[in-house]
Formats: sequence, C-alpha cells, structure tokens
Amino acid sequence: MNILDIIAKKRDKKELSKEEIDYFVDEYTKNNVTDYQAAALIMAIYLNGMTSKEITNLTLAMAYSGEVLDLTRFGENVVDKHSTGGIGDKITLILMPIIAALGIPVAKMSGRGLGFTGGTVDKLESIPGYNTQISVDEFMENVEKIGISLMGQTLNLAPADKKIYGLRDSISCVENIPLIASSIMSKKIASGANKIVLEVTVGNGAFMKNIEDARKLSETMIDIGKLAGKETVCILTNMDEPLGYSIGNTLEIIEATEGLQGDMEDDVKQVVLELGSYMIKLAGFGDDIEENKKKIMDCIDSGNAYMKFLELIENQGGDVSYINDVSKFENAKYVFPVLTDKVGYIQNIDAEKLGKISCYLGAGRIKKEDNIDNQVGLIINKKIGDKIDENDILGIIHANDENKLKNAVEEFKQCFKICEEYVEKPKVILGIMK
Amino acid sequence: MNILDIIAKKRDKKELSKEEIDYFVDEYTKNNVTDYQAAALIMAIYLNGMTSKEITNLTLAMAYSGEVLDLTRFGENVVDKHSTGGIGDKITLILMPIIAALGIPVAKMSGRGLGFTGGTVDKLESIPGYNTQISVDEFMENVEKIGISLMGQTLNLAPADKKIYGLRDSISCVENIPLIASSIMSKKIASGANKIVLEVTVGNGAFMKNIEDARKLSETMIDIGKLAGKETVCILTNMDEPLGYSIGNTLEIIEATEGLQGDMEDDVKQVVLELGSYMIKLAGFGDDIEENKKKIMDCIDSGNAYMKFLELIENQGGDVSYINDVSKFENAKYVFPVLTDKVGYIQNIDAEKLGKISCYLGAGRIKKEDNIDNQVGLIINKKIGDKIDENDILGIIHANDENKLKNAVEEFKQCFKICEEYVEKPKVILGIMK
Repeated sequence: MNILDIIAKKRDKKELSKEEIDYFVDEYTKNNVTDYQAAALIMAIYLNGMTSKEITNLTLAMAYSGEVLDLTRFGENVVDKHSTGGIGDKITLILMPIIAALGIPVAKMSGRGLGFTGGTVDKLESIPGYNTQISVDEFMENVEKIGISLMGQTLNLAPADKKIYGLRDSISCVENIPLIASSIMSKKIASGANKIVLEVTVGNGAFMKNIEDARKLSETMIDIGKLAGKETVCILTNMDEPLGYSIGNTLEIIEATEGLQGDMEDDVKQVVLELGSYMIKLAGFGDDIEENKKKIMDCIDSGNAYMKFLELIENQGGDVSYINDVSKFENAKYVFPVLTDKVGYIQNIDAEKLGKISCYLGAGRIKKEDNIDNQVGLIINKKIGDKIDENDILGIIHANDENKLKNAVEEFKQCFKICEEYVEKPKVILGIMK
Repeated sequence: MNILDIIAKKRDKKELSKEEIDYFVDEYTKNNVTDYQAAALIMAIYLNGMTSKEITNLTLAMAYSGEVLDLTRFGENVVDKHSTGGIGDKITLILMPIIAALGIPVAKMSGRGLGFTGGTVDKLESIPGYNTQISVDEFMENVEKIGISLMGQTLNLAPADKKIYGLRDSISCVENIPLIASSIMSKKIASGANKIVLEVTVGNGAFMKNIEDARKLSETMIDIGKLAGKETVCILTNMDEPLGYSIGNTLEIIEATEGLQGDMEDDVKQVVLELGSYMIKLAGFGDDIEENKKKIMDCIDSGNAYMKFLELIENQGGDVSYINDVSKFENAKYVFPVLTDKVGYIQNIDAEKLGKISCYLGAGRIKKEDNIDNQVGLIINKKIGDKIDENDILGIIHANDENKLKNAVEEFKQCFKICEEYVEKPKVILGIMK
C-alpha cells in the first residue's frame, strides 16, 4: 500500500477501503505521509466526497490514533454531549451538574476556546482555584466519588484529528460536512462516550449557516454513530443570536450560576431541557422526553443541581464563595452600557461579530498561545424580537483597555439591526434527529 | 491577496485572475506559500480544471519565474522543437543538424532523462569529449559561428515549473492536461523560442495513452501558444512501439549517425520529415510542406546534414572519429541476441516496458543522482507487423552486468506479443494540429 495510490483513488472518486484509510491516518500521524500529500488527499476528499463507510472508517482511525479514555467502569451507557460551537454557549456548565445530580455519571474532558467561540475549560478557570489540569486518575476518582468531573483535555486524544484539523485550516478545507462530522465524532469516541447527544448549531454565529447543511451534518454524524456502535442524537439549535445574555468567561460563569439557581434565559432553558432529556434517555434513565424535562426542572427547583455545581467546584479546588456571591468576582475596569439611537424591533443580531468583539476585548484567543482575560466580555440586553425604545440599553461592554472599548462600541451597535415592524421571536429548537 | 482565498476560489470552481495566479507562482517559488498549500491548490486545479486564460497565465507565470533565454539576436522567428517523450526518441539528434544545415539557427537547451525516457544531453555525452555544460555566452557564440549548439540546461529556467512538477509527482497529479500543457509550454517559452513545433506522442510508451487525450493536450498547448503570442504546431506521433531500432545512449548516437548518413528507419524518417517541414515553415523558410520535406531529403542526401552534425560535435569538443567510425564505440560486456520461440506476426510491443528494461540495465536514471551507463541498451529487430520465423532475432540486449542481463531476457521477450494473423504496420503520423 502506498499514499500515491490512495491519493489517486480518491482523486478518481473511488471508495477507499478501511485498510487504506487506516494506512493514511497511521502514517500521517507518524509523519511518514507528508503534509503536502495529506493536503492533496484532503482536497480530493473535499471535492469528491466520501461514502458513509469511508467517513466512519476515517472517524474510527482518528479516534484510535492516540490515547482513548476508558469510561467503562461507569457503566454501559456513558453519555456525553457536544456542541458544534456557538456564541455565549454555556450549556455544558449548566447541564452537566443537572445530569450528575440526577445520578448519571459525568466524566467530561473539554477543550479550550480558539477563535470566537469560548471553551468550557477557559470559563471554569475563571473560578479562582478551579483546577482543570488534574490527572486522569484524579478525574476518574472524582466521578466515582461525587458523580462528576469537568477537566481540560490533558490526554493525547485523537492526535490525527488534531493534525488534520490544523492542516484543513491552512488549506481552505474547513467547511466540509464529512470532514467536520468525522472530526467531531472522533473526539467524542476518543473521550470514551458510547452515547452521544450533539447540539448542532445553525445560523450566523455557527459553522453551519443554514438548516440544510445542519441536517446533512447531523445525518452524517448519526450514520457514523450507527456504524461505530455509538448511539447519537442531534438537537438542531438556532445560533442566529448569542445563547443567553452573556459572552465572556466570568460573565458566563455568573449566568450559569444564576441558571442553576433557577433563573435562566428562555433560550438557554429550552436547549438545556432538550439536550438534557435526550441525555437522560440515552443513559437509560427514562424514555419519556416530557417526563425527563420535568425531572430536570425538579432537579433545578429542588436546589440539587446547584448543590452539585458547588460540589464539583469545591472538589476541584475552586473557591465556592465566588459562586455563592457572584458579586465577589471583580468587574473589568470599564463597564460601559451601549445605548440605542434607534427605535423599533431587533430584526437581526450578528452573533459571529459579537463573538469576534468579545475575542478582541481579550475573552478569547486568536492564536493558541494567547492569554485570555476572564473579566472582559459582553452583556446582551436585547435579543431578536425585542422592542427598542429611545435610549434603551442594547448591552454592556466589559473591557480592560480604553482603546479597545472605544473601538468596540460602534462595532457592537452595528451588530444589532433594528426595523420598524414587529418581529417574531425566533424558534430555539429547530429539529431533533436520531 | 492571500493563498487561502485563492485555494478556496479554485476549490469552488471559480476562475483565478492573472494577479492570483502570479501571486501563487511567485510566492510558491519564494517558499512563502507552503508545499501543502500548493498541493491543495494543485489537486483543486486537477479536479476542477482551468480555463484557457488561467492555463496561459499559469504558463507565463512559470516561464518568467526564473531566467529566460534571450534568443532575439537570432531573428524574429526562433523555432524550437519538443517531444512529450518516448522510447528511443532520437529525433532531436537527427533533426537539429538538418535544420541548421538549412540555414535556420538552432540554439537548444535540452534536459537529462529521468525515468524510462532518455535525455538528449545524456546521449550527446556518450560522444567522448562532447561538452554539454558550456557557458551561455559560449552557447550563443556557437550558434552565431556555426548555426547550431546543443547544450544542457544550465540556466535556472522556469524554477516554478520544476517545483510544481516535483510536487505533482508526489501527490498523484501528473496526468492532467492543463498541468502538463503549462509545464511544457513554460519551459519552451523560458528557453527563448517564439515558434514551437511539438511532437505529441501517443500510445503505451507515452504520457498520452490515447489519441483523444493527445488531441486535448495539443489543443491546450496551441491555445496557450496563441494567447502567449508563440505560434505552435503539434504533430501527433505513434508511440505504441519504440521509435527507430535502438534504445540507449551510445546505441542511439549510432542510429542518429546512420540516419544523418541517409540510412533511417521508416518511422524515424516520417517523424523527422513532418516535424522538420513544420519547423522550416514556422522559421519563415518555406510555406509548402511537401517542398520542405524535399529540402530535408536533399540536405541529407547531399551530406550537408551529416557535415553539420560533425561540425556541431567538433565545435563542442567531441571526438568526431567516433562518429566517422562508430565501430570505435566500445561495446558493452554482453551483447546478447534474444531469439523468438514463436512464429507469426508482431501484434503489440510494450514500449514502456522496453524503456524500463533499458533503464534497469543502466541506460537511464531512477533518481536524479543516478549515474548512467552509456554502453547499455536494447536493439529492437522486429516491430509491429513484422513477420516472425522460428529462431528469428527479436532484438539484442547490451548489458554490463550478468545478473541484470539474465533478468532482462525473459522480460524483453514478454514485451513482444506475437499472433498468427497478418498484422498491418501502424501509422506513424497520427495527425497535425495548428
């Protein structure tokens, strides 16, 4: 077997065998296949596509290219969730303590943010003391002891995916459904889950800009799940505006805390209920989705979810006094309300641009090595369909740099398109595929 | 402008502008665009194609990526010839002295052979003393003095083409008409010609395996020529069997010598006459093709062509006593006639395999650094349509290594397919396109 024949086969639109895909992934991980050969193959895949069998084989080869987390000690149905990424997405922070409080083990390794979407690990690290870099043994012990642990990705999970993703980024091959699907699923499989609930975001703040692409991506991931023996459910959610009211690390921790105390924005609540009820189902804790939603609400109302959140934080060294009194979090230097100069209804919000502004203020990374500023970010006061009166506050910019604040104000305003006619609130849950 | 946008544009099947193609070629030559980015773009070009305008712009960008030979001092119509490669192709050696003897300046830089097709420079170097590595000044002086010089490619001609060709070879993107066409034409343009006669070989011993592809390639090169202001004529020739009766360096010098003395195989003669008469026409020395063919025959019959050959060799330091008495060339250690064990007619000859056998014996290079053995090679006694009686000699293997000789004998036999029915001789000239 050699890479030239494999490239030529995909170039000629033929199906690659499992052995050929394994060969490519193994040899590329070992640097025996060069970046330029991988680039040629990936462009051929982008243009000529892959069959379900090929996509699944690529996913499995990438999933098993490095270490694989073994979570079998926590039972047969270890369920995990993942989002294809959005602006202000704090669902993991709210949902995972709920799931754990319901008795379902939660052992989740999360990534850092890159580009305009934030990472759960970065958000957790804005809680003083919270240690995301624990050992795998400690991680496992935590789950056994209190039913939950959230940590950073310290294992060498799916290194082939990491390599291929980096390459795709430098050769304009990111936006491709088979490649996106296999990348996501390989990471989930390497993370040890065998039941997967995926939030597939759709809209201007997401990878998938329209519902058709989101459906295709979901179908592809569900197919991979079937062929790989990992039951997968996809919840399609609207990402035409940020999720919840905050973007930024500390700001999102505060919003998550309030959510677990029962005070949740409506869009966040819908996503939590939908994803959560399917996680409960896949974990084997209840087949009735409406019943499961009730369980989640009860879990929040009883305070159990919030208590589990505190337990999680304390158990990983975090200072829960900040959670119990979020006013302890020090504000950024500038907390600047942006007033509207128009009246009418919010017709459109440029979620992606808001993500970029937050990133520019320091909340995210442009390059992997960048430091992030936990305090900065954006508060969104008005969402699509909201009525705007004169001098209403559109939102609040939290900044630590005067120049950046100045630059951000006008940009922030431009993210909100206001029209005179009444605008209906958009649907949050756009579909469920399984 | 940036390479990611350029890759994305071609990925999406859009036409690249002249500026974008120039940017890619320049920055890739300077190593600012990486090999993997170039690989992705080339695969996208391979799969999505290029318009005539794009192909011409790519050709010109590559042609002017390094030094360009300035031959304008030799007049407005400097004509060059090129072959897309074949087995036993000694046309340059025979034709160029004829052209020079007719008063048309010949200033030709030739390449070395790589793979199973031999290079003119390697063949010339088998003449003791012949210097292919002269300076460009000397080369120019030679042409001025005696009307002809044949030398190796010492200038840094079309380095972008060299780089892209090397990359294509490692990513299974060699066999692609726009890329082949622009590669050939860029080298011709950098070599200073403004009128080009191309021998486009077709058959199992050529890049183009069938006449349709050869026609497409010819059309593409003629289009480039038109857009670039370099009049181009393509002669399509049969390469289903080797050209002439010899393959190897010294062996082909001997065949060329005999040819210039008037003793030419019929297929070689047809190609020489066809290419030569169009070269004469493009050089402005006569519009009537039949008349031109007569001029060529006269030039051979009068001895002028042979005298010019001797003059060329002597002028570049070669020992003409070897030419005047080719028996002075020392034979290889083994000169082994291969007898047939079948009777009938030659139906097929595997020209590519014969090329590979000759290369294996040492006449060619597998890697650029390999040394070549001038003495070894093959004599082909029987061609397609020839009648075979018992114990007829199919050909003669010239070898310097006993083991290689042994391995070559059976392989050599297998190159000839013999059938019982009468087989017609194949046509040599398959078409002329202009």
